[in-house]
Amino acid sequence: MLYHVRMNVDLPRDLPESEVAEILQREKAYSQDLQQKGKWRHIWRIAGQYANISIFDVDDNDELHRLLCGLPLFKFMDIEVMPLLRHPSAVRDDDS
Amino acid sequence: MLYHVRMNVDLPRDLPESEVAEILQREKAYSQDLQQKGKWRHIWRIAGQYANISIFDVDDNDELHRLLCGLPLFKFMDIEVMPLLRHPSAVRDDDS
Amino acid sequence: MLYHVRMNVDLPRDLPESEVAEILQREKAYSQDLQQKGKWRHIWRIAGQYANISIFDVDDNDELHRLLCGLPLFKFMDIEVMPLLRHPSAVRDDDS
Amino acid sequence: MLYHVRMNVDLPRDLPESEVAEILQREKAYSQDLQQKGKWRHIWRIAGQYANISIFDVDDNDELHRLLCGLPLFKFMDIEVMPLLRHPSAVRDDDS
Amino acid sequence: MLYHVRMNVDLPRDLPESEVAEILQREKAYSQDLQQKGKWRHIWRIAGQYANISIFDVDDNDELHRLLCGLPLFKFMDIEVMPLLRHPSAVRDDDS
Amino acid sequence: MLYHVRMNVDLPRDLPESEVAEILQREKAYSQDLQQKGKWRHIWRIAGQYANISIFDVDDNDELHRLLCGLPLFKFMDIEVMPLLRHPSAVRDDDS
Amino acid sequence: MLYHVRMNVDLPRDLPESEVAEILQREKAYSQDLQQKGKWRHIWRIAGQYANISIFDVDDNDELHRLLCGLPLFKFMDIEVMPLLRHPSAVRDDDS
Amino acid sequence: MLYHVRMNVDLPRDLPESEVAEILQREKAYSQDLQQKGKWRHIWRIAGQYANISIFDVDDNDELHRLLCGLPLFKFMDIEVMPLLRHPSAVRDDDS
Amino acid sequence: MLYHVRMNVDLPRDLPESEVAEILQREKAYSQDLQQKGKWRHIWRIAGQYANISIFDVDDNDELHRLLCGLPLFKFMDIEVMPLLRHPSAVRDDDS
Amino acid sequence: MLYHVRMNVDLPRDLPESEVAEILQREKAYSQDLQQKGKWRHIWRIAGQYANISIFDVDDNDELHRLLCGLPLFKFMDIEVMPLLRHPSAVRDDDS
Repeated sequence: MLYHVRMNVDLPRDLPESEVAEILQREKAYSQDLQQKGKWRHIWRIAGQYANISIFDVDDNDELHRLLCGLPLFKFMDIEVMPLLRHPSAVRDDDS
Repeated sequence: MLYHVRMNVDLPRDLPESEVAEILQREKAYSQDLQQKGKWRHIWRIAGQYANISIFDVDDNDELHRLLCGLPLFKFMDIEVMPLLRHPSAVRDDDS
Repeated sequence: MLYHVRMNVDLPRDLPESEVAEILQREKAYSQDLQQKGKWRHIWRIAGQYANISIFDVDDNDELHRLLCGLPLFKFMDIEVMPLLRHPSAVRDDDS
Repeated sequence: MLYHVRMNVDLPRDLPESEVAEILQREKAYSQDLQQKGKWRHIWRIAGQYANISIFDVDDNDELHRLLCGLPLFKFMDIEVMPLLRHPSAVRDDDS
Repeated sequence: MLYHVRMNVDLPRDLPESEVAEILQREKAYSQDLQQKGKWRHIWRIAGQYANISIFDVDDNDELHRLLCGLPLFKFMDIEVMPLLRHPSAVRDDDS
Repeated sequence: MLYHVRMNVDLPRDLPESEVAEILQREKAYSQDLQQKGKWRHIWRIAGQYANISIFDVDDNDELHRLLCGLPLFKFMDIEVMPLLRHPSAVRDDDS
Repeated sequence: MLYHVRMNVDLPRDLPESEVAEILQREKAYSQDLQQKGKWRHIWRIAGQYANISIFDVDDNDELHRLLCGLPLFKFMDIEVMPLLRHPSAVRDDDS
Repeated sequence: MLYHVRMNVDLPRDLPESEVAEILQREKAYSQDLQQKGKWRHIWRIAGQYANISIFDVDDNDELHRLLCGLPLFKFMDIEVMPLLRHPSAVRDDDS
Repeated sequence: MLYHVRMNVDLPRDLPESEVAEILQREKAYSQDLQQKGKWRHIWRIAGQYANISIFDVDDNDELHRLLCGLPLFKFMDIEVMPLLRHPSAVRDDDS
Repeated sequence: MLYHVRMNVDLPRDLPESEVAEILQREKAYSQDLQQKGKWRHIWRIAGQYANISIFDVDDNDELHRLLCGLPLFKFMDIEVMPLLRHPSAVRDDDS
């Protein structure tokens, strides 16, 4: 089941650089692991912003929430979720 | 080059049903043709809304505008565009 | 799976009264049928507004969208959807 | 009498972890006690957010305010209240 | 029990003047009757606007909704409701 | 002359408790003094919020501003003012 | 007593040109009469908009409302009012 | 040439009182000097707010910006500018 | 003197096609004439929208307003104006 | 390819003056270098604000993002991007 997720990141200025680096490294590993498992279907950067648009493909609302809460950057993010479904005009098999 | 496009449709109530049907049929053909050509990369319906989230993959801003203006539903839509790019954590080859 | 749905109704003033009555009667039957089937878990009126707050319990985003689009009042409504899940502090068995 | 309450939690980053843990434990006990007494009728988590949707069933505006102000997380919350009532199409006895 | 109600009136321009006059006359009678019964505690005009701020004193959310829906101008109004309660610093006996 | 005033209070978390207590005590005395003088006609708490709705009855804009600026909580408040006047349907003598 | 008033004009497209001309002529006479009486202290056009910023100098909220309601364009306007007072740094005698 | 300027002041709570007093004194002198030179045509306080509405009469956009940036309170202000011009109904010679 | 102008066009659906064509032709001539005179410095289309971003270079607010009001599409536009000035980092001679 | 970029700068008050000066010097050099290379086509200050409107002419969304992220002030900015294209009424060769 698909969800549209927008994540806006806002890192506090007083976070030590080493801590930021460590969080970002964990965030990347976490994201890539979920992408490889097919749970985090797409991720794109929004031009000019520290933000991304993602498509998640999960079993249900619970799994979506669990995955989002597990994000190393979770507490520095503002997250908006919209449930998606296959569009009647879609032609790609994997757009549903 | 990728763009995130949200289309909200608002059909006037006084449009004759036959005209609506004809426009929607043209819209579907137009969309599927662009999807097959790879220009309209993804399209999803937003749950509970007469709206979609789409990803376009076009040469430049000009082509994006030309394709959107050509939509049979264009004058009944409110459209928002955000330029996207490959996210540094992306693993899928086709997310850029 | 649970969803929070807010429906704001805006009936056009030029709709004939008999048509309004007929739509509202179908809407009520449609809603009560889904409530009896357990799909439309709760529905409350918001004080002072022609609007309701509903909780749907459906299989997935697709079913939610199909049920909402089938509402006789659908084209006169503005609908907002939020996916819900069981709260870790919930005690009622049926709040999930 | 029913009220729709949305609570958005925003914990300050400089709150010591032990203090957070203690507040959350008290919050859970407080919420479950009110749920068991039937005052806090429903509570659901909103997917992807540190926020909940709740339905309170209290005697009047005063009791609602007193219960909300007593929340251990009260000063870290942004709260929105909407008075609800039984919907004319409702079928469940306990939706009023 | 007290509620703060803001009513914004927007009369359609194509309503015949005689119909407007008749609605306004019924609105005034309806309002004054409820004021005399103590249900509609206060009403003030907002300077420069076709809008009012009112305080209702009713038994519960249901009664509030029933009274507001009965307003002859109801379908031409946008209404916002906020539940109120006695302020701990209030000195007037009738501010609760 | 009447004014509708909404006051939202936001106490900084790092204010010492004793200072908060002292400010709130002065605020209460200040408010009750103005209420007894008839300048601060009504005050109600908004359910679920650290906010109030007040009606002031003062000589002019100057006096209103002077009284609001004198509030011990003034610098911790966000204040919105709307000028009011007697509504043509009002029946209470003191609603003007 | 001074008030800041912003008036946004929105003339319906189906108003006959002769009616528009007649209303605008009456509006101008009405405005200039109040300016000459000192009630409508200032009026400026906002560049690029069918809107004006005005300063009224009237006895009280009642008079302000009466004057605004009397505007020939009143029903085609969206009006916002802010009460003003002399600024402690003002040097002009007539800025209060 | 005229500009409508709204200035909202937000002094940080941790600014030492003596520094605040010194800034406010410089702000007042700066404002009165520009008023006497005819550059800062009007200034009014908005009731209930630490904000003012001002009318500037300057040579061009450059001069306006230079004067605003020179305000001792500039970095504690949120400023909104609207270009104005003589209204066709204006009667005062100095409203342009 | 420079101004940033955003124009959003909203053509009513019931405007006869021949009238639309005639207005658009006049709009284009009007715009190109002002561009050639150097008054309308730049104009760009916003991708996906019936809207443009323009830079005007005019003598003063009056001339800007006169030129905008003269637009054949003026009554079908929503216009936003921001006064600009040379940026201290600008290197192009004609960016001021 | 053209983009409209608005940059709002918000320098934290506790940044040492020498650090601010050093960042601003690097920002200016960075901007002027990109202007001379033709990547940063235009830059204007918005009157009364610590903000600018810029036009970028870059190869694609990626290059735009890379250039914006490289801004020495990037982490103190709020940036909004809109893709632009040549307007059908444009006459200047370099407005595309």
